[in-house]
Amino acid sequence: MEILRTREELTRWRNAQPEGAVGFVPTMGALHEGHLTLVRAAGARCPSVIASIFVNPTQFGPQEDFARYPRQPEVDADLLASAGCRALFLPTPEIIYPPGHATSIHVEPLGHELCGAFRPTHFQGVATVVAILLNLVRPSAAFFGLKDYQQFTLIRRMVADLVWPYDIVGVPTVREADGLAMSSRNRYLTPEERARAAHLHRALRAAESARIQGTDNAAALEEAARAVLTEGGIVDVDYVAVRHPDDLTPWKGQGAAVILAAVRLGKTRLIDNWWID
Amino acid sequence: MEILRTREELTRWRNAQPEGAVGFVPTMGALHEGHLTLVRAAGARCPSVIASIFVNPTQFGPQEDFARYPRQPEVDADLLASAGCRALFLPTPEIIYPPGHATSIHVEPLGHELCGAFRPTHFQGVATVVAILLNLVRPSAAFFGLKDYQQFTLIRRMVADLVWPYDIVGVPTVREADGLAMSSRNRYLTPEERARAAHLHRALRAAESARIQGTDNAAALEEAARAVLTEGGIVDVDYVAVRHPDDLTPWKGQGAAVILAAVRLGKTRLIDNWWID
Repeated sequence: MEILRTREELTRWRNAQPEGAVGFVPTMGALHEGHLTLVRAAGARCPSVIASIFVNPTQFGPQEDFARYPRQPEVDADLLASAGCRALFLPTPEIIYPPGHATSIHVEPLGHELCGAFRPTHFQGVATVVAILLNLVRPSAAFFGLKDYQQFTLIRRMVADLVWPYDIVGVPTVREADGLAMSSRNRYLTPEERARAAHLHRALRAAESARIQGTDNAAALEEAARAVLTEGGIVDVDYVAVRHPDDLTPWKGQGAAVILAAVRLGKTRLIDNWWID
Repeated sequence: MEILRTREELTRWRNAQPEGAVGFVPTMGALHEGHLTLVRAAGARCPSVIASIFVNPTQFGPQEDFARYPRQPEVDADLLASAGCRALFLPTPEIIYPPGHATSIHVEPLGHELCGAFRPTHFQGVATVVAILLNLVRPSAAFFGLKDYQQFTLIRRMVADLVWPYDIVGVPTVREADGLAMSSRNRYLTPEERARAAHLHRALRAAESARIQGTDNAAALEEAARAVLTEGGIVDVDYVAVRHPDDLTPWKGQGAAVILAAVRLGKTRLIDNWWID
């Protein structure tokens, strides 16, 4: 696997790939099985898979975990290579944001809803860095985990709105045995928090059960989920919301829905979502 | 000249052009000699020139002249054809902003300075529509009039920041015999206002004279320009500002400068600028 650190190295690698061959997996590193599933999904579709590792400072708020976000580039490089990745783009902030950089991309109102209500500059950071990475790599398709469902929806919206020729592919969440969605932040959890964390997924499944039993009211589904969170000792809840899966507008009681939640366990913020079909 | 009204028609035309051949001139119509100079500059460099006419609603403020902005597509089409234009993209707002469109592009702080201080949502509207048009047309180069110097600077910044492969080419302002920069808005002027309007260019030239005589202080150059405006009966001045030509940051007294001004004559807002080298 080639390690590319500059725009020039990336461009040289990119221009050597056949047209239509490149699949891209942007990450922040601290890789787990979810990321490797993205790489394998990319490999199943594209002969040349490139990943990036970039802990993007602009998507962290001032009180968030940018400084302590786990960084393990050597371990990650080995994992990526073992999953079939052909190249790894490892830029510094100066490579992504050269002096004078002044542009940001906003997707509204979605960028200020759900997680965006609690992380007000997060999604403009995400949209902007993904735009830069996509336009540097110019893949046929880019692969994103559906655990970050709001991020996926927002990126898909941005790419459509700005008429970019990249397929944005969502890959199902990989879970631990007890249902906890894999996340680089799970390693922050104490053993006691880790045990409680399983209730996040159970809460979303409780909403699904309520839906199967005929509940067609978003607030009642959210209440069913919140009851399980409380029961499981998850009391610090940013939001629980049932939304339309296409654009995350409020769910009207008919057709497919997605329930999304963000909770805090100690200093760790976890998100998850579940399709209710 | 082909008239293209949909994304599909545009794409079909675009895909029929040789790679590297397309020059693009985005306009809001109401064409004058300045626009035709852009078309000829594009033609001198690119075998296939396409223009667009789109009066973009998102770059007008609620109290601005969107409704009365002059529209003359048939006249414009004849002018473009006579200047050598091969195709004209004539979209409606629904073609540019399909249902669900939610993305905007911001270039900060530049987008809120100078004209942006008086037109707070103008430049995000400009940046976003230019992004969409560029990505739809995918030209080798796009041509912009330097009369809108802040717009030119901001678009060049956006294209660099988002790593788009389009050359952004600035074309010198075309002027009337008395120095007034050509503008679609000049037709709003009464004969009396038109006579006074010539002082806008004279004011900028007065700053140039002061510079040639050794003035190296931005405020003093701006004062020299303002004196001519007042003398010429232009009393409603949004701003007069001497800036660095590359990024429009404040001018430090050395090297090339650009002086920019925006004034109002009755209901008409005029802008102009002049390089001081």
